[in-house]
Amino acid sequence: MFLSKKIRTIEPYVPGEQPRPGSMIKLNTNENPYPPSKAVKGAILAELENLRLYPEINAERFIQSVAEIEGLRPENVFAGNGSDEVLSFCFPAFFDEKRHVRFPALSYSFYPSFAQFFSIPYSTAPMKGEDGLDIDVEALLSGGGVVLANPNAPSGRALPLATVRSMAETLLARGEVLVVDEAYYAFGGESARPLIEEFPNLLVVRTLSKDHSLAGLRVGYALGDAGLIEGLRRAKDSFNSYPLDCLAIAAAKAAIEDLEYAKACAERIVATRDWFYAEAMKRGFIGQNSKTNFLFLRHGKKQGAWLFEELKKRRILVRRFGRPEIEDYLRISIGTREQMEELLRALDEILNEGGKVL
Amino acid sequence: MFLSKKIRTIEPYVPGEQPRPGSMIKLNTNENPYPPSKAVKGAILAELENLRLYPEINAERFIQSVAEIEGLRPENVFAGNGSDEVLSFCFPAFFDEKRHVRFPALSYSFYPSFAQFFSIPYSTAPMKGEDGLDIDVEALLSGGGVVLANPNAPSGRALPLATVRSMAETLLARGEVLVVDEAYYAFGGESARPLIEEFPNLLVVRTLSKDHSLAGLRVGYALGDAGLIEGLRRAKDSFNSYPLDCLAIAAAKAAIEDLEYAKACAERIVATRDWFYAEAMKRGFIGQNSKTNFLFLRHGKKQGAWLFEELKKRRILVRRFGRPEIEDYLRISIGTREQMEELLRALDEILNEGGKVL
Repeated sequence: MFLSKKIRTIEPYVPGEQPRPGSMIKLNTNENPYPPSKAVKGAILAELENLRLYPEINAERFIQSVAEIEGLRPENVFAGNGSDEVLSFCFPAFFDEKRHVRFPALSYSFYPSFAQFFSIPYSTAPMKGEDGLDIDVEALLSGGGVVLANPNAPSGRALPLATVRSMAETLLARGEVLVVDEAYYAFGGESARPLIEEFPNLLVVRTLSKDHSLAGLRVGYALGDAGLIEGLRRAKDSFNSYPLDCLAIAAAKAAIEDLEYAKACAERIVATRDWFYAEAMKRGFIGQNSKTNFLFLRHGKKQGAWLFEELKKRRILVRRFGRPEIEDYLRISIGTREQMEELLRALDEILNEGGKVL
Repeated sequence: MFLSKKIRTIEPYVPGEQPRPGSMIKLNTNENPYPPSKAVKGAILAELENLRLYPEINAERFIQSVAEIEGLRPENVFAGNGSDEVLSFCFPAFFDEKRHVRFPALSYSFYPSFAQFFSIPYSTAPMKGEDGLDIDVEALLSGGGVVLANPNAPSGRALPLATVRSMAETLLARGEVLVVDEAYYAFGGESARPLIEEFPNLLVVRTLSKDHSLAGLRVGYALGDAGLIEGLRRAKDSFNSYPLDCLAIAAAKAAIEDLEYAKACAERIVATRDWFYAEAMKRGFIGQNSKTNFLFLRHGKKQGAWLFEELKKRRILVRRFGRPEIEDYLRISIGTREQMEELLRALDEILNEGGKVL
């Protein structure tokens, strides 16, 4: 009775399960199977004496590193508590009653929650393609600003840079913003970073959770024109002055500066993915290979819900979404080669057993 | 041109300066001068192997500890990224177009920014008393829900528990929420915690930044009826699934369990405050002693702006607010005895020099 109407009626995002570390083979939330850069530990230890002090207001040390790596200036970089918080701030910063926002019908399912939370009118563009998993760019551009995950989730498919450029162009002509959520770009996608100087309406959002193995520290950032970054800062400063704590800032700086390590991890994950994809195809799974650190596949003969439960019984956790149009799909994060071998052994056991046929 | 109208016109909160650690005597943002509990370092080290994994969705380990300490159940506790984020979430959770919110005209200056950010209609109650720094409870209760800092900032004054109880009663009868921001309760205030079981409309918000010396880690929490806590969780889950990272969760749990250490630090700070207050009075300062870890004083003969700048020249940073009605006041955080002695030496030097007379 004391809650606002909005909070009573909102549909919050439901994240994947987070079981106790070590209790399961966890392939459900697209974490990196490798630990973060060795530089991270030292950076955290060096920061322990500052715990009693407030952190830097804009995560300046981290932002400076990102700017140098990307060949941008600090005023082109914003840092937040995971890319989720950065994306959250995009909604009040760039959209309102008069500037609606649009995203693909099948994409990161947090987008509609963000829009509802900030009372931003939103609409979704229907998917296209044989399996209904491709983004319909034309439909997406039919009105309002756009939030685009590229590569997209849960499909794992990427749009080429030329397409993103033409989207930015169309939206610029209309005075609308294009937010490109690049959570998964390091695993095979093309970043829109090269377009930033040209398009003052283009914001690139990234996370350190996937390619930098820092999901536990909640660090994300955005790259874009200083005007857009200023909007995000004004949003942040009206919500919480210091969403990044001093340990996260220090660790993120250390992780992002170790470019080679992140690249090597991504390469291993991509190699494991491509190998696993071929193995899955041999076992009757259907779906495209991805440009991300997960695969989105269904089995030609078995129900998704049944496969999900059988894997869970064997202490392997993958992700499944309740939506009817994708109810038979499993989203499988790419773990280590050993974890994926164990997954294949479990699948062989399950698929031979029989189970619910489609 | 790409920013929403709200973000273009909002008045973001302006936090105190955060200079490089060690470069100044920092008495401007009410940090604890003592380091956190010794248990914190071990807790952080033990967590380093989990950095690649997402943290617990609701900071469960920390919430469990808070619930045990407070004699409540986990569903009565919410954790957020600093009490700022917890307070932020209160605005969309409990207030809306039809349920306005009211707070004292002189209080934590983030409240109006939160309200603007979430488009919540708000109003302020004028202050009363000889120096205009007392809360006018009757005026505060004239309509809408209430956010009350108790002890209040920047005045440092506290309302007695009986007054808070009668406020909760009045608001309960109207179906409105009372949020009590207890950032400073550990330094002499009375907590509203004992009222929680009786008042389903009462939320108590606290931070680990002050009495637990963890400003750098950004951890705050709320205590209240499960219905209110559910509202905060729905807000959080529509904004950012995991605003507390794994290191902050582990450190906060360790810090809050070390009750004796926090109590001992608070006692030292209170002793230093009372001694410093008497010394300041001897030197011509005017104002009441506080119930917090800061003092809010003005000098009988010298301008606040001048004092502030002279102290800054001597590498001592205090806080001053631009508002005309308090322009001559300095808000001075209580540091160590040694820091406060240095402040007194600097004041003696400055006050003898002359400077701008009121």
